[in-house]
Amino acid sequence: MDVTKIKPLADRILVKPVEEEEKTKGGIVLPDTVSKEKPQIGEVLAVGPGRTNDDGKTFPLQFKKGDKVIYAKYSGTDIKGDDDEDYLILSEKDILAILE
Amino acid sequence: MDVTKIKPLADRILVKPVEEEEKTKGGIVLPDTVSKEKPQIGEVLAVGPGRTNDDGKTFPLQFKKGDKVIYAKYSGTDIKGDDDEDYLILSEKDILAILE
Amino acid sequence: MDVTKIKPLADRILVKPVEEEEKTKGGIVLPDTVSKEKPQIGEVLAVGPGRTNDDGKTFPLQFKKGDKVIYAKYSGTDIKGDDDEDYLILSEKDILAILE
Amino acid sequence: MDVTKIKPLADRILVKPVEEEEKTKGGIVLPDTVSKEKPQIGEVLAVGPGRTNDDGKTFPLQFKKGDKVIYAKYSGTDIKGDDDEDYLILSEKDILAILE
Amino acid sequence: MDVTKIKPLADRILVKPVEEEEKTKGGIVLPDTVSKEKPQIGEVLAVGPGRTNDDGKTFPLQFKKGDKVIYAKYSGTDIKGDDDEDYLILSEKDILAILE
Amino acid sequence: MDVTKIKPLADRILVKPVEEEEKTKGGIVLPDTVSKEKPQIGEVLAVGPGRTNDDGKTFPLQFKKGDKVIYAKYSGTDIKGDDDEDYLILSEKDILAILE
Amino acid sequence: MDVTKIKPLADRILVKPVEEEEKTKGGIVLPDTVSKEKPQIGEVLAVGPGRTNDDGKTFPLQFKKGDKVIYAKYSGTDIKGDDDEDYLILSEKDILAILE
Repeated sequence: MDVTKIKPLADRILVKPVEEEEKTKGGIVLPDTVSKEKPQIGEVLAVGPGRTNDDGKTFPLQFKKGDKVIYAKYSGTDIKGDDDEDYLILSEKDILAILE
Repeated sequence: MDVTKIKPLADRILVKPVEEEEKTKGGIVLPDTVSKEKPQIGEVLAVGPGRTNDDGKTFPLQFKKGDKVIYAKYSGTDIKGDDDEDYLILSEKDILAILE
Repeated sequence: MDVTKIKPLADRILVKPVEEEEKTKGGIVLPDTVSKEKPQIGEVLAVGPGRTNDDGKTFPLQFKKGDKVIYAKYSGTDIKGDDDEDYLILSEKDILAILE
Repeated sequence: MDVTKIKPLADRILVKPVEEEEKTKGGIVLPDTVSKEKPQIGEVLAVGPGRTNDDGKTFPLQFKKGDKVIYAKYSGTDIKGDDDEDYLILSEKDILAILE
Repeated sequence: MDVTKIKPLADRILVKPVEEEEKTKGGIVLPDTVSKEKPQIGEVLAVGPGRTNDDGKTFPLQFKKGDKVIYAKYSGTDIKGDDDEDYLILSEKDILAILE
Repeated sequence: MDVTKIKPLADRILVKPVEEEEKTKGGIVLPDTVSKEKPQIGEVLAVGPGRTNDDGKTFPLQFKKGDKVIYAKYSGTDIKGDDDEDYLILSEKDILAILE
Repeated sequence: MDVTKIKPLADRILVKPVEEEEKTKGGIVLPDTVSKEKPQIGEVLAVGPGRTNDDGKTFPLQFKKGDKVIYAKYSGTDIKGDDDEDYLILSEKDILAILE
């Protein structure tokens, strides 16, 4: 689908996983096929309005478009973009930290 | 059943799954039988009045009839329409994003 | 038991499952033994006073006697009537929609 | 134990299961050994003061001594009386309906 | 340990299980080794101050030292006394009824 | 680690398990290798400030340094001290009673 | 990733596990390969703003950068730093105590 048209709801965000170059101790860059771990860093493409509490009050998210975030592995829902790239819809609680 | 007569309750919505044309990298459209993944995009046909909190206050849903929504796979209850098509009754929390 | 004497408590309702005639695409009505899915539509025979919140306030149910409701499969408790028919006691949360 | 001395606490009730005479369609009464289902109807022998919410307020139960109630199978705790009969201590939430 | 020195905390109580004499229908008392069920009746030896809610308010227990209580099987924590007897620390919710 | 430097957080306490001398009915003290059950009595070495509720109010614990407490088996986190002894970090809810 | 750029969110903290030298009773330091247990002590490198309750009020964490903390084994999310060292993102509830 066309990910530029995705508008996340509630406390959800749309993230583009960022593949980290993985180096060995000696500094050799490993090609993609050697790296087995799924990426844990992503760039925020779109954010929802935020979590709404039981009384109907909404709290904006603590990150914004363009932020790089670290998220827990295996969380969220995978989305395949029209550009054949993988995207992810995550919830606020899946985001552990911002990478400045 | 006649889905035009379904009136969802509480925070539920009636959705008609939309089958995305799936293309290979080279642009070739894959016939339906090759695509194995269940669709994750649906058109909203009817919405309930919204979630009611413990004090009896109701909060309207954030999407309306005609919206295209992205929902988590394997969520909701399947409904077979009189037109032999598949429909789905989902809850607000199953809806991840709106597709504009 | 005599289902006409059942008075549901709290947010429960007594429902008589409605067997839908199932037709093939060509319009042929399938006999009952061919249809394997349990019915998901029922007629409301009696309703409880409604859910009571933690402070003791009661909220009336959103459906009434005579309504046709759609409910999630495998929910509720089966009741065998004196008339040898099957009935069901369901909770408010099991009811997905009203069929108008 | 002597069930006449049991005083249920909180939202619990003491129930004497009622064995329903089960008839075949032709009206033949089936002897007890043929009927395999455990009874789901019971007579209320004693009730507790009712559920207490988190603030210490107590809500009386919606049924009283002598009521016939329908309860979910396999719920509650079995009690063997001095009279060799089986009794049951149930919670309010196990009671689905009153049989008038 | 010396059970006379046990001071239960919060909504917990110290109970001495009471072995019921079990009789057959003919009135013959069964020796202890024949009876397989664990006792469900106990005498309250000591009670805690009661449950404390989230705001720090404490609610005294509904039973006191000397009461005979009926409790759910397999609940609580077994304590072996210096007198080689078995005792039990139970929570308020494990107590189903008082036996007067 | 040096357990004298452990400062428990929230509703946690540091406990030194106390091995009870176990005697047979005849009064013979069993050597340690015969006793298989893990100790359930411990001496409180340090306590946290207490549980904090959702509004940020803190409730001090009901036991203090030097108290002997009874705790549920298999609860808490084992800590190996520099003195090669075993210690335990427990939560308030794991403490069943004080042993006076 | 560059851990100096990690800014934890909500009640999360970034921790560098500290490997304790493990000595036998005779005082012999065991080489790393003999010690099998994962470290349970870590140094706090960065802290989030703190837990936010349902009404949107934030409560600062009870530990700060530079604190040594004891955490439950197998908790948190592992992070591999650019320096080839292992780091951990933990939640407030995983921290059992401060080591002064």
